[in-house]
This record gives sequence, C-alpha cells and structure tokens, in this order.
Amino acid sequence: MADSQNPSAEDSLIARYFKPLATDPGAFGLVDDAAVLSSSGDDIVVTTDAIVEGVHYLATDPPDTIARKALRVNLSDLAAKGAAPAGFVLTLALRSREDSWLRPFADALGEDTKTFACPLLGGDTVSTPGPQMISITAFGRVPTGRMVGRTGARPGDRILVTGTIGDAALGLDVLTGGAVAEALASDPAARHALISRYRIPQPRNLLAQAVREHASAAMDVSDGLAGDLTKLCAASGGSATVDVARVPLSARAAGLVARNVVCVETLLAGGDDYEVLCTVPPAQSDALIAAGRTVGVAVTVIGTIVAGGARPRFLDGQGQELALKRLSYSHF
Amino acid sequence: MADSQNPSAEDSLIARYFKPLATDPGAFGLVDDAAVLSSSGDDIVVTTDAIVEGVHYLATDPPDTIARKALRVNLSDLAAKGAAPAGFVLTLALRSREDSWLRPFADALGEDTKTFACPLLGGDTVSTPGPQMISITAFGRVPTGRMVGRTGARPGDRILVTGTIGDAALGLDVLTGGAVAEALASDPAARHALISRYRIPQPRNLLAQAVREHASAAMDVSDGLAGDLTKLCAASGGSATVDVARVPLSARAAGLVARNVVCVETLLAGGDDYEVLCTVPPAQSDALIAAGRTVGVAVTVIGTIVAGGARPRFLDGQGQELALKRLSYSHF
Repeated sequence: MADSQNPSAEDSLIARYFKPLATDPGAFGLVDDAAVLSSSGDDIVVTTDAIVEGVHYLATDPPDTIARKALRVNLSDLAAKGAAPAGFVLTLALRSREDSWLRPFADALGEDTKTFACPLLGGDTVSTPGPQMISITAFGRVPTGRMVGRTGARPGDRILVTGTIGDAALGLDVLTGGAVAEALASDPAARHALISRYRIPQPRNLLAQAVREHASAAMDVSDGLAGDLTKLCAASGGSATVDVARVPLSARAAGLVARNVVCVETLLAGGDDYEVLCTVPPAQSDALIAAGRTVGVAVTVIGTIVAGGARPRFLDGQGQELALKRLSYSHF
Repeated sequence: MADSQNPSAEDSLIARYFKPLATDPGAFGLVDDAAVLSSSGDDIVVTTDAIVEGVHYLATDPPDTIARKALRVNLSDLAAKGAAPAGFVLTLALRSREDSWLRPFADALGEDTKTFACPLLGGDTVSTPGPQMISITAFGRVPTGRMVGRTGARPGDRILVTGTIGDAALGLDVLTGGAVAEALASDPAARHALISRYRIPQPRNLLAQAVREHASAAMDVSDGLAGDLTKLCAASGGSATVDVARVPLSARAAGLVARNVVCVETLLAGGDDYEVLCTVPPAQSDALIAAGRTVGVAVTVIGTIVAGGARPRFLDGQGQELALKRLSYSHF
C-alpha cells in the first residue's frame, strides 16, 4: 500500500523488483525498516561482501551474472563456516534505474534465493553518480558455538579444497584479452566455460554440514589459494606444506599450464575461486571426501598442516619449493 | 598474525583502524570471514542503510561526522523498532586510503560503538573510483516476537514524535547556501547548531524499551515527517490527522518560520531528522512521554490515527488542511 498512496522512486522500485524475493515472514514484505531473524536457539553467522563495478566485476558483465556473483560470494562464506543460509540484506548503489538492467538482475537474484534457500530480508537502494556497487550481508545458522573458524588448524591436519582452482582467474584473463584469450582464440566453448567460472561462482553450500562436522578450520578461497591458506595458517598459528601436483585443476586449466600459456603459480594466486579450503584431522578426511561425493562436489587433499610460523610451502613434483612472487589477487 | 606474515593492503588497513572497534567475542578480532551473533533466545532485528558521498552527505563533511552519521542512521532504525543494539557490519567503499581521512573516521566510529554499546562485528573494505560510500547493517535484540512494526497503528491511537522536526533540513540548507544560510549570515552559532543536526543524528536508543512497551507501530523519521507518517499509515491500513501547531520545532526553526524564511511545510517534508515517530494507544501516551522525560528525550503528541485509507491530513491552527506539495526528501 505504501507505494500506491505515495510512490517514492525507491519504494516503487523495491515493490516492483525485490518484493517477490522477500518470501520470509521476517522480511515483512519489505514494507518495514527492519527485518527479523527469529530466535531458533541457533547462532547466527554474519558475513558481508561487496562487489564494485570495474573492481570485482566488469562493466560489461551481464546483470544476471552480477546478481548471482553478489549473492554467491556471500553464500560461499556461509558454506565455509558450516552454516545453513537464513537470508540476506541487499544494498544496491545504482547509477541508473533502467528496467533492462534491473529486471534480469532481480530475476536472477530471485532464482538464486530459491536455489540456495536464502530469501531477501531487506535492503537499501541508493543513487550513486559513480560505479554501481552491490553490498550484501548474509546470515546463516549453526548450532550454538559450532561456526567453523580460521583458528583451529593443528599440525597433522590434512588440507582439503573443493572443486578446481584457477579457472576463474583464467576467465578474467579471457575477458580482459590476456594470453589465455589469445591461446583460446579458436575455442569459444573453452572461453565461455572459463568466463562462467569468473562470473558465476558455485558456492559449496551443499557441503556445509559436512564441513561443520569434520573441519578444524575453514574459509573460502576468494583471493587466491596461496594467500588464503597463508591467512588460515597465520590465524591458526601454524604452517603448511602443499603438494602442488595434487591441487585440483580443470582439464582446461591443466592444458593451459602444459602449453605454458600460464604457470601454475598464477592459478595458485588467482582470485574468485569461491571454493572451500579446510583443514581436517587425518582420520576424518575420507569422511569429508565421501560427503562431497554424495552431493556431487569434488574434495581433494592437497597438503598438511605443520608446526611453526613459516609461510606455507608449495612443493612441486620434485619436492622443490615454488617461489611465489604473488600470493593473492588484490581487489583493493 | 595474518597481517604480519603477508599484509595485504586491506588486511593492514583493517588491523590498523578497525580491529580496536571489534570488541565483541563474536567478531573474532576481524580475522575471520564471518562473525557470530550468539544465540540468546531473542529475535535479531536487522536493518541496513547506506550513505553515499554527494547524496546523503556532502563531500566537504568532516570524516568524523560521516562515520557517526553512517552508524547512527542505523541505530535510529533499531531505536524505532524497540531493539537494543547488538553490533554491526561495515562496508566501506574507499577512493583513497589517506590516514587524514581514515583516522578521524575510525576514531569517531569507535567512540560511537562505545556510546551506543554497538560493537563492530565485521566488514568489507573495497576500492571505488567513484564517490565514497558507507553501508552498514546493524543488529538489535528484542524478546521473541516483540519487534515494533509499521502495521499496528489503530484508529484512536495517538501519534507521537521525539525531539524536534526540521532542524536537519535547515542545516542542509545552510551548508548548500540557501535562504536559511542568508537569513543566519550574522549568527554563526545558529548555523553551527543546525549543521550539527544535519551531520550528526541523535538516535533515540535510550527510548527503545519504552517504545517496545507502549507503541502499536513505529518507524524513524528519515525522509520527512509527512512522507514517513504516510508510509506508516499505509502499512497499518489507516489514516491520520496531525495538528501542525503541535509538531515540535526548535526555537531556531520556529523563529525562521515566524520570519517567513522557511514555511512549516518544508520542515514537515525535510529529511534527516532521525527522530522516532510512533503510535500509542491513548491510555499509554502519558507513560511514553514520562519514559522520555526520564531519559532526557522530549516526546510530543502531534495527532491521532483515524480510520480510512486517505492520505494523512496536516491541519493548521484554524483547522485548515495544509496543501503539502512534497511529502518527503528523496535521497534517491
């Protein structure tokens, strides 16, 4: 009713595009200033990630993939924390309000709210004369005290990672016309697949419960496997050795490495993987791998936590340490 | 440790400026991707509001007031919902990382986290080539099912508002060189006081519990009293009559109206008041006013909810309806 009596620009935009996504009773149909996450006896896990046009996505990316990326980078955090999605709030800084942008954006976001059972709870829509920005704060639930942190890795724990590493960085290279774009000039299917990995993360929420049951520490890989593992080790007060030959690569990525189009170091430091990186006591690593199999997510042991405060070592097939010039992709 | 081993630009910025604000154990010292709002049996109230340079604040506003405004516009929502602050997450889109801007920003934000008992739980810091933007999602707690919504106003309920209305709009006029700036050219103290009302909202969190105990519906006044009351009435399925002579004005605002520098309609439609607007069953309005007195917040009856779906009527001293051309200030 608010918009029929006195339709402000923001109210009518919200009613038209976003009210259908607010299916949770705690969202009050987006007519209130606030939402409610109802008491359930669970802890609420909170994560927030923003994506900025020209920084985290390209101005030429389609609006539907921008919407999915904005939500999924947050869902990926929830997966790594062992939390079941409970909802999210959205801040949308818009330069224009064209239906041709908002309609596919809202439709794709709506599809993802269903796919991941993560309804829109509220938000704020503001104008900006600058680049567009989408900031999402997402909520998950875990039993009391059971969020999987970064500090619990212990020497001897196995290091595991989901999916494959480096494809998104290769997709960004394709989009920005780098060496990969050139190497795949005659292979549009490969270019498309890598671009999709960059634009549309595949968060591993189906694995969240198993991560919670088995992992001693976990985080998602967003800024590059090497840098993110370094952060996890630092938070846990340990170090790591990684067998680079065991780091899971897609066939396409492995092919590009074999052809010397890219080196494996680039894949280890590339961003936007949105896979789960976790440490697991040795006796439980098979259980996590099996849990992955039942939900269709590959889980691979890539190394071991070791004592000490040194930077994690990445060893090649001959046991030689790779000299990583760069550990992470910096969006900052 | 994360920043000592491999200090990324973002990590070191967070450690230097924001870690001291993350005093809640659920923030994990900002070394995790996520925070925890622990289970307490209470409902969690969630609100999110962003402010954009050049839209919600002026590029010339000092960083300390920008920080306070960013947090306080969210605290104001919690106050109106009857919720006790529990913490917030911060997304900061920065164009530059100058200490001369970040230091006063973080210091003032830190002071407000203490004043309002609302610790920083987490956040995200991103680069933008455009205007700076601060997006905050704030959390509060209420007993299960007790958040004060917008839909509960009933015919006969009194309409009450805290503080005074219109000062912030006058302050913005001073800053942008309008008629008020001209009229107060020789009165720097008055200009300063009005500017402060624009830059530094005074959220009424001390009154939150009384709002929860007495109000049938509530919201904060952020876009103008007239427009916000219209929204509240629409959400509740009612209408309202407001006695404009009873709308509380500061002595300065009343003086400017008396001198015909501004008309009262401008004050009713001006934004950025961040006062609580609520409806209260008649038998309880004195109790809310008394509760306000004990915490030093003026609470004033300005009208009554009436049946029907008409737009709220604003009546002057002669019972004539004001013709409001504009109900709200649109930031959009």
